[in-house]
Amino acid sequence: MRLERRPQIYFEHGENRMTGKVYIIGAGPGDPELLTLKALKILVQADVVVYDRLVSKDILNYVKKTAKLIYAGKAPGNHSITQDEINDQLVFWARNKQIVARLHGGDPLIYGRGEEECYHILSNNIDCEIIPGIPSFIGAAAEYLIPLTGRYIASEMTISTGTYAGGKQITQDKIFEIMKTAKHSIFLMSTKSYETILNVARSMNPNIAIAIVERATNNSSMIIGTASELSASSFKPKPPTVIFVGAGPKWRLEKLGKLARYY
Amino acid sequence: MRLERRPQIYFEHGENRMTGKVYIIGAGPGDPELLTLKALKILVQADVVVYDRLVSKDILNYVKKTAKLIYAGKAPGNHSITQDEINDQLVFWARNKQIVARLHGGDPLIYGRGEEECYHILSNNIDCEIIPGIPSFIGAAAEYLIPLTGRYIASEMTISTGTYAGGKQITQDKIFEIMKTAKHSIFLMSTKSYETILNVARSMNPNIAIAIVERATNNSSMIIGTASELSASSFKPKPPTVIFVGAGPKWRLEKLGKLARYY
Repeated sequence: MRLERRPQIYFEHGENRMTGKVYIIGAGPGDPELLTLKALKILVQADVVVYDRLVSKDILNYVKKTAKLIYAGKAPGNHSITQDEINDQLVFWARNKQIVARLHGGDPLIYGRGEEECYHILSNNIDCEIIPGIPSFIGAAAEYLIPLTGRYIASEMTISTGTYAGGKQITQDKIFEIMKTAKHSIFLMSTKSYETILNVARSMNPNIAIAIVERATNNSSMIIGTASELSASSFKPKPPTVIFVGAGPKWRLEKLGKLARYY
Repeated sequence: MRLERRPQIYFEHGENRMTGKVYIIGAGPGDPELLTLKALKILVQADVVVYDRLVSKDILNYVKKTAKLIYAGKAPGNHSITQDEINDQLVFWARNKQIVARLHGGDPLIYGRGEEECYHILSNNIDCEIIPGIPSFIGAAAEYLIPLTGRYIASEMTISTGTYAGGKQITQDKIFEIMKTAKHSIFLMSTKSYETILNVARSMNPNIAIAIVERATNNSSMIIGTASELSASSFKPKPPTVIFVGAGPKWRLEKLGKLARYY
C-alpha cells in the first residue's frame, strides 16, 4: 500500500534537461473551445504534435507554425500507424529534447490507450504528464441537455464500448446486464452495435428512452425517442456516436417536450 | 421521435435582448488550468457569478472586479441555500439583463443538478446554455495515471454515488452488483461508504485493487493498495474523494510499482 502526493511526480520541462517531455493531452469532444487552458498552454509551446483522427482541425490551428505535425489517425479497422509506432515516435522526439504533445480526441484514459503511451515513455526514462479532456459523452450531454447522473435521476451510470479488442462486438447478454445494473447506460464506439442495443432495450421495456448524438459538439445532431419509436424508424446512425439509454434521455424527453422552442 | 440540430438552440447574448442569459458551467475538478476556454470566455464577461463550495478560489480570480459573487455552497448535509433559492437567483439576475455564470465543481450534469437549473431557467423563457467541465474522477485519473476504460483494461466503467437523495448510503447489494457488472467501478461522494465499499470488494476478492484520491487536482493525495491491505490499515479518507475499484487501480499497481521514481 502506498501513499502518494502529486508535487513529487512531474517535472517542468526546460532547456537544461537531458530529454524533452511528452504531454498526453485530451483534446475534448470536438469544439475547440472545449480544450482546457492547460492543454492550450502546452499546445502553443509544443515542438512536435502527434494527433488522432477525431481531433478537430481547428484545434491544430493553436499549434505554432514551426511545429512538426504527425498524424496517428486510427479509423475503425484501419490503423494507419500502429500503437508501437506511436509509442516509438513519442520517445524518439522527446529523446531529441523536443516538447511533444500527444493529442487524443476526448480524454486519453477513456478508450484512448493514454496509459500505455505514458507507461512506455516513463519506462524509457522520459517525463510524461497526462492532461485530461472532456469526453464525447459529457460534451454531448451538455449540448443537448441530457442529465448524466443525479440523486433524483440516476444514482449511477455505466460507460461502455460496443467494440471490444479485435473488433468483436458487445454481446446481448452484456448489454442486458449493464442496462439492468445502471439507471443510465452510455455506449461509445457502438454505432455497429446500435441495432443490438435497441433490441435489448425494447425487449426490456418498449418505452425506454434512447438518444443518439452524432459528432458531439462538432456539427452534431441528435435523434431521441423511445426504443419502439426508434425501432420503427429507418434511422441508421453514422459514427462517431454517443448512445444514451435510460434515465438521461427519459428526463430529456419528459421535461423538454414542451420547451421545443428552445431545444 | 425527434431529430435535433444544435445551431437552432442557443442564442448569443447581447444588448438588444429583453433578458440576460444563464450559463451553467462546469469549473472542472479543482486545478484552475483545467477550466475550458469556453468557460473562461464566459466567466470574464459575467455580471453575476453563482458558485459552489467545491469551486476553487483561483477560478474566481478570473471573474471581473465589478461582478456580483453569490455563494451557493452545499456542504454535505448542510445546505446554506436551497436549490429553489438558487434557481430563483439565476432567473432574477437574468431578468435584470445580466449575464449569469452558474459555476459547478466538476461537470454540471454529473450529480450537479445542472439539468434542473437549466429547466427552471428555460421554463421562465430565459436562455440557458450548459458548458461542460472535467469531473473529479477524470482529473484524478490523469493526475495519478489510473486508466479509466480501455479495450485491454476495462471495456466498461460505472460511476456511482455512495450518497443517495436524503443522505441514505448505497447498500452492500448495490455495490456488489456494480462491481460484478463493471470491470472498473468509481464511487463519488462516497467517503462515508468507504468501509462498506472496502468490505464488499474484499469479500469478492481480497486482491482487488483500490485507489482513493482525496482533493483531486487540488493539493491531492492518493492511497493505493489491495482491499486486504487497505482493510488492515488505519486509513480514513476525508472528503472530497474519488474511490477507484478494479481494473484501473490494478493496472496502476502492477505497471507502476517499478516506476516509483516517477509515480
